[in-house]
Amino acid sequence: MTEDRFFQELFARLPRPPGGVVVPPGDDCAAVTVPEGRLLLFAVDQVVGGRHYVAHGPADTPPRLVGRKVLARNLSDVAAMGGTPTYCVVSAALPPQRSEGWLNEVLDGVVALAAEYGVHMIGGDLSAAPHDEVVSLAILGEVEAARVCRRGGARAGDLLLATGRFGDSFPSGHHLSFVPRLREGQWLAGSGAVTAMIDVSDGLLLDASRLARASGQAVALHPERVPLRTPQTSLAAALHDGEDYELLAAVRRDRAEALLAGWPFGDVPLTALGEFVPGREPGVYDGRGARLDTRGQAGYDHLQGREANP
Amino acid sequence: MTEDRFFQELFARLPRPPGGVVVPPGDDCAAVTVPEGRLLLFAVDQVVGGRHYVAHGPADTPPRLVGRKVLARNLSDVAAMGGTPTYCVVSAALPPQRSEGWLNEVLDGVVALAAEYGVHMIGGDLSAAPHDEVVSLAILGEVEAARVCRRGGARAGDLLLATGRFGDSFPSGHHLSFVPRLREGQWLAGSGAVTAMIDVSDGLLLDASRLARASGQAVALHPERVPLRTPQTSLAAALHDGEDYELLAAVRRDRAEALLAGWPFGDVPLTALGEFVPGREPGVYDGRGARLDTRGQAGYDHLQGREANP
Repeated sequence: MTEDRFFQELFARLPRPPGGVVVPPGDDCAAVTVPEGRLLLFAVDQVVGGRHYVAHGPADTPPRLVGRKVLARNLSDVAAMGGTPTYCVVSAALPPQRSEGWLNEVLDGVVALAAEYGVHMIGGDLSAAPHDEVVSLAILGEVEAARVCRRGGARAGDLLLATGRFGDSFPSGHHLSFVPRLREGQWLAGSGAVTAMIDVSDGLLLDASRLARASGQAVALHPERVPLRTPQTSLAAALHDGEDYELLAAVRRDRAEALLAGWPFGDVPLTALGEFVPGREPGVYDGRGARLDTRGQAGYDHLQGREANP
Repeated sequence: MTEDRFFQELFARLPRPPGGVVVPPGDDCAAVTVPEGRLLLFAVDQVVGGRHYVAHGPADTPPRLVGRKVLARNLSDVAAMGGTPTYCVVSAALPPQRSEGWLNEVLDGVVALAAEYGVHMIGGDLSAAPHDEVVSLAILGEVEAARVCRRGGARAGDLLLATGRFGDSFPSGHHLSFVPRLREGQWLAGSGAVTAMIDVSDGLLLDASRLARASGQAVALHPERVPLRTPQTSLAAALHDGEDYELLAAVRRDRAEALLAGWPFGDVPLTALGEFVPGREPGVYDGRGARLDTRGQAGYDHLQGREANP
């Protein structure tokens, strides 16, 4: 099977792309229209066998979940901007022992999740690799310019809200099954009350720290308020584990009560974890003003190479 | 060094992004504007150590050339659509033996070539990998909707033109130093005489076959007309080797003479290799009507895993 044939067969079984796809897959680039007045969002994220999923042995991650994960990670990034995902392209580098059937299942996992969110896969590239398997996905999305949420807008007095629950993503399997918070991100961005937003992919405290530092603010985060993923989840896991894929939003204090009361997603908790406070160095503090360590165990740093431990 | 710090330092030394970058790197996605009435082009391509470049030993490819190559491959795809590249994002998965300095040089290679073409790198993702090194780049570009060139528009009677020379890309080092044919692609697209275009990345005959089949046409390609890369290059290498990164264009016969006469790029040959002919099965034939085999030795099929042999 050649790369051409592989993609021909893949794209033939995909849903017909919408009218905005002027040049569908099969040319050197796909070409799409972008509605006037919308910003185009652009990001990339990858999964690596043995790091983001189990790539061998009896616990080998089902390939559909590998594909699901690489798209879901990207969808979480679009969610954090308040955006709507639109198109993606996928590159895969695979070792000799991975069959075409395995790759087809990976891409079926991408496409099945894509269909749930109206995303279309419109390009790809395949290569052999000597040993490892690496699947990289680049995503496009759109957002109204006036609605886009960034990391750097939080101000002293804002509250820090979080969707969902935290910790134990690997042992619970959450890292393979999580639902990206797109509707929540769009709803929050649409409220006009959010001053900054980020997705929690590398640990709650580390990502809270990124939000606070990008905003030049200190945030007091009350650890006892953090929702734990399971009754067995430790507070340390909730604060430091990676791959929660929840949203952290800074919200204007005068709008927070109404926002919490109007939250329409009963299956996903929305929790006030703390508040941005004046007069301190940017960073994350506990409720008594002690600085919390966001490094060390904190966060899943991909470059440091901490092994995924599913 | 964390991934955050790595990208902060990288983006700090990049040229300031243009006004169209509304959200620069550092958020969950970058956000850009797209001019009204332009199509957005989107593609992905990757390089894998040991396949697209030498990844160990005394012939280890300089990392700047690795980065240059992954961007140049993508630029060639944008060129084939007649487009102008605008933005890119890069993901890299690296084994323990590759240092941060090595990665910085790879990205310096991306950024230096990007600057030549007004392309801005606006996002990235890093991961550790157990053994291999994989660098994937997704590119955006723009093109006037009326000018976009596709593979499928050639008609019987059109001529087949090619830029540049063919064969021996690996032994000559062309695969690391080639100049993507952006100005040539834009000029050809702007002429209004091109009915179809493709870049030659996987072998002249294989890519000619893709153009012909996408157009539902037969093309007679005269092998003796193919410009050879060097005096030592064999015809077989010119017809079948991969990684030429030249353009093949189908051109209206009544416009071809003026196009060849007006070709403004004296350092790059433009050659009429043949013509599209009626009444045959789609594919590639020689001047006497014998079908040419575009498979087998033909083409650099990444999924089949033919080893790069620099």
